[in-house]
Amino acid sequence: MNVRVKRREFLNLLAAFGGTGAALNAGAALNLLPAASHAQTLDLRSPDPSKKQVVILGGGLSGLTVAYELTKRGYDCTVLEASHRCGGRVLTVRHGDLIDEIGNPQYCSFDDEPHMYFNAGAARIPSSHKNILGYCKELGVDLEVFINENKSAYVQDDKMLSGNRIRNIEFTTNMRGFMAELMAKALTHEELNQPFSDAEAEALLSSIRAFGDLKENDLYEGSFRAGYKSGGFLKHGVQKDMIAFRDLLKSRLGRQLLSANEGDTGPILMQPVGGMDKIISGFLNHVGERVKYRAIVNSVEVLDSGVKIVYDHDGARQSFDADYCFNCIPTHLMVGITNNFPDDYKKAMKYVRRGDAYKAAFQAKSRFWEDQEIYGGISWSNSPSRQIWYPSHGIHKSKGIVLAAYDYGGGIYHTQMSQSDRIEAHLSDAEKIHPDFRDNVEKPITVAWHRMNHMLGCSARWQRSFSTGWTHDEEKLYETLRAPVNNRHFFIGDQISMHSAWQESAVMSAQWSLTKLDAYVRQDLA
Amino acid sequence: MNVRVKRREFLNLLAAFGGTGAALNAGAALNLLPAASHAQTLDLRSPDPSKKQVVILGGGLSGLTVAYELTKRGYDCTVLEASHRCGGRVLTVRHGDLIDEIGNPQYCSFDDEPHMYFNAGAARIPSSHKNILGYCKELGVDLEVFINENKSAYVQDDKMLSGNRIRNIEFTTNMRGFMAELMAKALTHEELNQPFSDAEAEALLSSIRAFGDLKENDLYEGSFRAGYKSGGFLKHGVQKDMIAFRDLLKSRLGRQLLSANEGDTGPILMQPVGGMDKIISGFLNHVGERVKYRAIVNSVEVLDSGVKIVYDHDGARQSFDADYCFNCIPTHLMVGITNNFPDDYKKAMKYVRRGDAYKAAFQAKSRFWEDQEIYGGISWSNSPSRQIWYPSHGIHKSKGIVLAAYDYGGGIYHTQMSQSDRIEAHLSDAEKIHPDFRDNVEKPITVAWHRMNHMLGCSARWQRSFSTGWTHDEEKLYETLRAPVNNRHFFIGDQISMHSAWQESAVMSAQWSLTKLDAYVRQDLA
Repeated sequence: MNVRVKRREFLNLLAAFGGTGAALNAGAALNLLPAASHAQTLDLRSPDPSKKQVVILGGGLSGLTVAYELTKRGYDCTVLEASHRCGGRVLTVRHGDLIDEIGNPQYCSFDDEPHMYFNAGAARIPSSHKNILGYCKELGVDLEVFINENKSAYVQDDKMLSGNRIRNIEFTTNMRGFMAELMAKALTHEELNQPFSDAEAEALLSSIRAFGDLKENDLYEGSFRAGYKSGGFLKHGVQKDMIAFRDLLKSRLGRQLLSANEGDTGPILMQPVGGMDKIISGFLNHVGERVKYRAIVNSVEVLDSGVKIVYDHDGARQSFDADYCFNCIPTHLMVGITNNFPDDYKKAMKYVRRGDAYKAAFQAKSRFWEDQEIYGGISWSNSPSRQIWYPSHGIHKSKGIVLAAYDYGGGIYHTQMSQSDRIEAHLSDAEKIHPDFRDNVEKPITVAWHRMNHMLGCSARWQRSFSTGWTHDEEKLYETLRAPVNNRHFFIGDQISMHSAWQESAVMSAQWSLTKLDAYVRQDLA
Repeated sequence: MNVRVKRREFLNLLAAFGGTGAALNAGAALNLLPAASHAQTLDLRSPDPSKKQVVILGGGLSGLTVAYELTKRGYDCTVLEASHRCGGRVLTVRHGDLIDEIGNPQYCSFDDEPHMYFNAGAARIPSSHKNILGYCKELGVDLEVFINENKSAYVQDDKMLSGNRIRNIEFTTNMRGFMAELMAKALTHEELNQPFSDAEAEALLSSIRAFGDLKENDLYEGSFRAGYKSGGFLKHGVQKDMIAFRDLLKSRLGRQLLSANEGDTGPILMQPVGGMDKIISGFLNHVGERVKYRAIVNSVEVLDSGVKIVYDHDGARQSFDADYCFNCIPTHLMVGITNNFPDDYKKAMKYVRRGDAYKAAFQAKSRFWEDQEIYGGISWSNSPSRQIWYPSHGIHKSKGIVLAAYDYGGGIYHTQMSQSDRIEAHLSDAEKIHPDFRDNVEKPITVAWHRMNHMLGCSARWQRSFSTGWTHDEEKLYETLRAPVNNRHFFIGDQISMHSAWQESAVMSAQWSLTKLDAYVRQDLA
């Protein structure tokens, strides 16, 4: 950034603030009633008895949603699942479980206790995701609060304070204080103050002071919010030392810490008691007997009258004729499976890339973080391991599972390592935050979604560039792929949404396809 | 505020920022190792067998802490509790319970289910309160996460937007956006920019952009963080309308919303599963048989050899000779009980005032807030009822207990009303946030601490003025009252702390007095 260039923009900004711009006076046409936020109610007709065979390719969350809803209406559903388990990226790892990474299979040896699990894929349900929450309620899946932001957790950056960890609350309190001082100063500057009335300036200044805990003189001089150095209960509290703004600005984590809990993670987050796959179990309680495991699809042929599936099962090639097919096979795998899809459909499938997110976890021999006043939440680092997640559940129990790496950007970095190199990398990264981490953990598990069998990738990525938004072409490809083929074949899953990687999208995609099926069935029956 | 006066301060501020001031360069002597945060370990000696009679006045949390610790060491403890229950301001209200308000006794008729309770006093345990957490662990009290801040909850102010509610996240997202725009503008202003290097200015600007979700032009133009108006999953999300800065500034709640979760409520908060009084039950499991209920103290006489207590029990006057006395009777009640305390002790007792906090709750016939994407947390209002608290537990169950008023400032406003007037006030205040509140709730309970029998007040207030801090005289009075009399009489409780109203202070006060007792006992035995 060239500050001199920015300088030239200043008068324009000021003019904008002065009256003609949007910020100060916008929002006239507010619709203050909240959007209806109930889970979608599916009004689906029962099938024509001669057209009720449904095949579902893949037992992920979207596939099971379809199986559950259609079985309820009298359809005859069969789920063909390629792996040994349902759930896809809803993967909870427990004692004895297989992590089916190609070339690096692992068996989990966590202690066999209900709270000793690791949600290696989906891990959080936002309160705004009403459809997945609706299924939790309907299926009797107990929920508890998930802690995402914990200001008592740590921030560590090799570039800041000689790499010493500080508490998140030290970082954010000091950062906010300095920012508030800057704002207060701007307000006292005549030009900047111009658009505000005295009463408005006073209201704003009082918010700014509260935001940054400024002293009477509108300077930031440290804050008790960052914690007590000593005392606070029986004796006067002594403030923790202020950290220099200049030091905080050496870390790029400020950008993340000042916007870490926004969007999907902004509202309250929840998790099923006992593991995310309790949702999968909830569906399987109803449609479990409909699933054929280790059934690997060989070809998909859409016909006028239905869909013909050829698949391998128990070493034998089999075929299945269905009236309708719902398909949540990842599109980048589906492109390699024989099919007769229209060309534009094939083109769209090929366009979608996959993310390569990576997670790793250890069993902790003791819940050492609780001795450091950390109960749940995330420590942030600029190391490749990026994050440490402390469990929100099992408070004060003797052990717990701690996530020691969540690489959601270029997870391929760890994926390309051997298992032992991955573990060593996470141990040495975590030692910067918890010096005794290595001695306190055991039984590592790594999950490299890019190499997980039958998935070979994490969530779908439609956009080539996130900064420019969806291009017109991308939108067209998306609309192509979510439209049914011949009213017989429906692609589903979070891959067929504009907001992948969330269970809500998988469920909503399934529900949307079901309404399309229903519209066709009604027309057909009419 | 006179902006022209502020203007004169500007050059001073700028100079301070420019190099000599604290903010930019402070914090050289950082102690980055965290303070030891384990619960205090009490190393208490067993008593001389001839001096082991202990009387504890009041079965509040501090009294039970003393009873528990001393019984463990072989002391012979007796707790004289004036009311029908232990716990004092640790009060969980359930089906069948008596609310013992003078002149307004109430019996609770909530449904008789484990999740249907109301913590009318202590309700939150911060993760930094290590001593009360230590007892939870030691006593086997199961903990769960308590949600305090919920950005999906509402903000309502008669002065703002015609009194229409908005979501907390709409308020804070827009406020932050406008604040960030102001900061960015300040940064582009040459004078203000002066102390920053280009690299620092860029790091700061990137944090500011993240903080406020500014667009490329560094203007705030609304944000998806405030929620989707429509779409977001299968279709493009449409941003909610921006709210004008000018409108937000009409509410004084900005001050609170931008600093609502700081200090004690900054870190993760927890609550015992099933009600806060599970902590009291935990202590009573060990010392329950030591408690005499409805034992009303009549006089306290400190002697050279011990303490003589006269009290009324079962209609008869009784007396009790103890070697040591721990006293958590509220000081403003103790001043009216015959005693032979030193004059400076009496003077200190008289100085301490009591708060008059007030809470009210209803049983909700359905968890209607969950249909509005609210799971736990607080809605804020400028009405006298101030807050609505949604339960953090019992997610998706059919009913719940909802707090409809928490007046922690001048709670006397509601205390002076009749029970029916209180209820009507809360119903009409809550209707501004939930139009159908009245129809959805039943079985109200109000708790006016100012009139609760045997307490007649909420937490102690030592300071006459919060803005000026503790005066020298106040400190002297405090030190007087926390010192033992004759090594025989010890005042305890959160009232004998500099941070009242928290369980941590009650527990720490008890622990501190126990170490004083122990020092005396060691000296005596030596």
